[in-house]
Amino acid sequence: MEQHSNILKYKNLGIYTQNENVVYMHEDCHVCISEGFEALTRIRISKATNSIVASLNVINSDMLFPNEIGLSEAAAKKLNVSENDTLYVSHLEPIESLSHVRAKIYNQKLDYSAFSEIITDIVQGNYSNIHLSAFITACAGDRMDITEISHLTKAMITSGKQLNWYEEIVVDKHCIGGLPGNRTTPLIVAIVAAYGLTMPKTSSRAITSPAGTADTMEVLTNVTLSLEEIKTVVEKEGGCIVWGGTAQLSPADDVLIKIEKALDIDSEGQLIASVLSKKAAAGSTHVVIDIPVGETAKVRSAEVAQKLKNHMETVGNAVGLNVKVVITDGTQPVGRGIGPTLEAIDILKVLKNEADAPFDLMERALLLAGELIELSGKVKKGKGTETAKEILKSGKAYNKFLAICKAQGRFTEPVLAPYTIEIKAEKAGILERIDNRKIAKLAKLSGAPQSKSAGILLNVHLDEKIEENHLLYTIYAESKGELNYALEYKNYHNNILTIT
Amino acid sequence: MEQHSNILKYKNLGIYTQNENVVYMHEDCHVCISEGFEALTRIRISKATNSIVASLNVINSDMLFPNEIGLSEAAAKKLNVSENDTLYVSHLEPIESLSHVRAKIYNQKLDYSAFSEIITDIVQGNYSNIHLSAFITACAGDRMDITEISHLTKAMITSGKQLNWYEEIVVDKHCIGGLPGNRTTPLIVAIVAAYGLTMPKTSSRAITSPAGTADTMEVLTNVTLSLEEIKTVVEKEGGCIVWGGTAQLSPADDVLIKIEKALDIDSEGQLIASVLSKKAAAGSTHVVIDIPVGETAKVRSAEVAQKLKNHMETVGNAVGLNVKVVITDGTQPVGRGIGPTLEAIDILKVLKNEADAPFDLMERALLLAGELIELSGKVKKGKGTETAKEILKSGKAYNKFLAICKAQGRFTEPVLAPYTIEIKAEKAGILERIDNRKIAKLAKLSGAPQSKSAGILLNVHLDEKIEENHLLYTIYAESKGELNYALEYKNYHNNILTIT
Repeated sequence: MEQHSNILKYKNLGIYTQNENVVYMHEDCHVCISEGFEALTRIRISKATNSIVASLNVINSDMLFPNEIGLSEAAAKKLNVSENDTLYVSHLEPIESLSHVRAKIYNQKLDYSAFSEIITDIVQGNYSNIHLSAFITACAGDRMDITEISHLTKAMITSGKQLNWYEEIVVDKHCIGGLPGNRTTPLIVAIVAAYGLTMPKTSSRAITSPAGTADTMEVLTNVTLSLEEIKTVVEKEGGCIVWGGTAQLSPADDVLIKIEKALDIDSEGQLIASVLSKKAAAGSTHVVIDIPVGETAKVRSAEVAQKLKNHMETVGNAVGLNVKVVITDGTQPVGRGIGPTLEAIDILKVLKNEADAPFDLMERALLLAGELIELSGKVKKGKGTETAKEILKSGKAYNKFLAICKAQGRFTEPVLAPYTIEIKAEKAGILERIDNRKIAKLAKLSGAPQSKSAGILLNVHLDEKIEENHLLYTIYAESKGELNYALEYKNYHNNILTIT
Repeated sequence: MEQHSNILKYKNLGIYTQNENVVYMHEDCHVCISEGFEALTRIRISKATNSIVASLNVINSDMLFPNEIGLSEAAAKKLNVSENDTLYVSHLEPIESLSHVRAKIYNQKLDYSAFSEIITDIVQGNYSNIHLSAFITACAGDRMDITEISHLTKAMITSGKQLNWYEEIVVDKHCIGGLPGNRTTPLIVAIVAAYGLTMPKTSSRAITSPAGTADTMEVLTNVTLSLEEIKTVVEKEGGCIVWGGTAQLSPADDVLIKIEKALDIDSEGQLIASVLSKKAAAGSTHVVIDIPVGETAKVRSAEVAQKLKNHMETVGNAVGLNVKVVITDGTQPVGRGIGPTLEAIDILKVLKNEADAPFDLMERALLLAGELIELSGKVKKGKGTETAKEILKSGKAYNKFLAICKAQGRFTEPVLAPYTIEIKAEKAGILERIDNRKIAKLAKLSGAPQSKSAGILLNVHLDEKIEENHLLYTIYAESKGELNYALEYKNYHNNILTIT
């Protein structure tokens, strides 16, 4: 296979393309010419016994010599290359698992081995963004049955590391998003870890929302911890709140989530597989899942929530998890802040039992912490919430939270964004409706979650009586451009809050 | 909107990414920082009143200064920029038509205006490859009904230029691929143009096959002609055989086809919309469509072919075309050559009435040319093929073909590839089966269609009696690497030709 003539010298170009592997070769490169490579060809690049697959971009400037090869940062990191390393390039053998993706596009059912082959290729970086998008789309919109979702979940669990805590009971919780500001997780971990349960919590960053738990926690502490570091924190404090991505738990999920974000979709099957694969790989045994239901929440009707509950519990069972799903009110945002820093402020207020702490956020955290405490079998049915409340009110939860943050590397007080604008009521009346999607969009346009201190601080709740000129909410941004962008969206959409 | 601070100076980086718009900015660029841009963010870039949308790649080397901006070649061409031009960058307003793509993912029906908005955004380059892949996948696998296919077809017709030949009858033909070597189009154009009909033929390049008609014709003549040039050729000769891409007919199709190629899928709805939108936009009135049916052809059963025939005729009717679908035998390759140059050689042999001209290719061309002549109403039913045969045998078709090639800019004799290997029968027997897909794959691995003279020259037909060591086919390649790559595939797949 002409191995010797396909050798090129690595040059660092410093091009960051997020997750996608891109390889750069000069148009006069003898390998390009003799192998018939053209732009966007998928190529295998090897260094010693390691190899990756990347899409080719062809260079016709002096950025590269014809005998040189460049890689995007993601690709360079995966292949662990240094300047002047010799790399070997070759045609990509056909990716066999794509035949399963095509079968799925044509509505065929996939079995465990098909999903396993797909997920293995995804984790190895063999799929381009085009392939990933097709896989996600082909599996979206109810196109996977419950058996397929279980297969996919299992394939995702085994695609990465799996933790074992050597404990009989390891608890976890998850909220099916769509409810801005609903940041109960840090509160729940603090409460149940203070109670004595083991809760090694790995969370996601935002997919389509203005903040994920990992984004919010990153304001307060480090969330990018190695597995060894996570183990040390949990052994010491009984709990942690870290980003799941670096723990290499269900690594396929991290790749898929980025594409879902670009498409702005969350499909039921991928959602279940994403949530439960992370839980199972993290070594959990008992999981409470919160599904908020509301007209503008992610789940809009009790019927859909009930179906999702059934599917979650069935798939949980199939992969060996004790899953309890709690359906909650999702008609309005929870707490006051929407965006990482603003949500972190809400969390601290609740933990410190401050007078202006958001009551609704506290109530939800107590309900879910209570369910976990009951699920563990350590208190009587119906006594969980009460137990949780005692722990919170005593200050034990706050102390545990600070201890966890410090064990994770730091505790930092949140700082608000410099650019703000106050949005006031144009008329008096009753606040009848808050559009969760539009308020989330507004927070995203203001810069959240990339700009941590950007977002929305809500000053009102549903059914509240509003006077003219009453402060409805404040938009926070880290730049004037973002503030204006959010404001422009607000000016074009006058039904974000409906006063009647 | 801080217009003044968002200005950057263009630097040509010479990075070729095929069709995709990519923008390069330095990580220390004040615009990146103040706007919160990160890698893969979609950004609007403007020069004066023109603008495009591109995905951001972030640079951390000295390839760019922080006040500079780079663009992929495709993006630079669309925006028509020169070194040191000042460009203005801004956040991308939400792409509203993506909500229709999401609706389609969730199995909702789309109306004409939804398809029209999607296609308009695609033509303007507002969709990333991730979005395009999702749109194609969501519409694949029977997920569009006949009304939706008609809407999509109409949207694609109106997305580009539309030709008018000011003739009552303008004929065209199309073959639903999957049959290697089935290159009847150039023969049909030569015959019907010699007969006196108007046939301004625009063809595609290969999607998933080793050659499209445009790839094959490019061996013999220029196929990349402007609309003005096409008009001149057709006015002079009554016909042309050009690539449809530069004519800006149904431009969305050219974008979608590249993604379909990466996914290696052709869905029924996209197929119909692709074919009929090109025909209608090219100003055709009467169209014959050939559907070869065979176990390893694109269409595998008479049932599927019949359904496709009905849908093609219904959609044709809806967009104002007189469509006749002919279902033909698709059990084996047509002619001897598979790959642009090898197919061009077959075509010339038929036109010159040479003794070793492939009989099957000639027969198919006469059948389809005959159908067109009959569809035009100029000869009696059943007399079309006879008329076509007279024109071919008289040499008029050959003369017309040469005249068309010359009118298109040149006539070049085909030249074979330098690297070859002969594959011989390992045992005696009857040739029972030819796997069209595998033989096409073999031709593609040998380099076709990018390497024009690469491909397969078949020496046998179905049901032929084969002696041991009889030459079955020859693999042609332009490089040793490609020859070995094809050979390796052949060695791993021993059922490409089945002798029993």
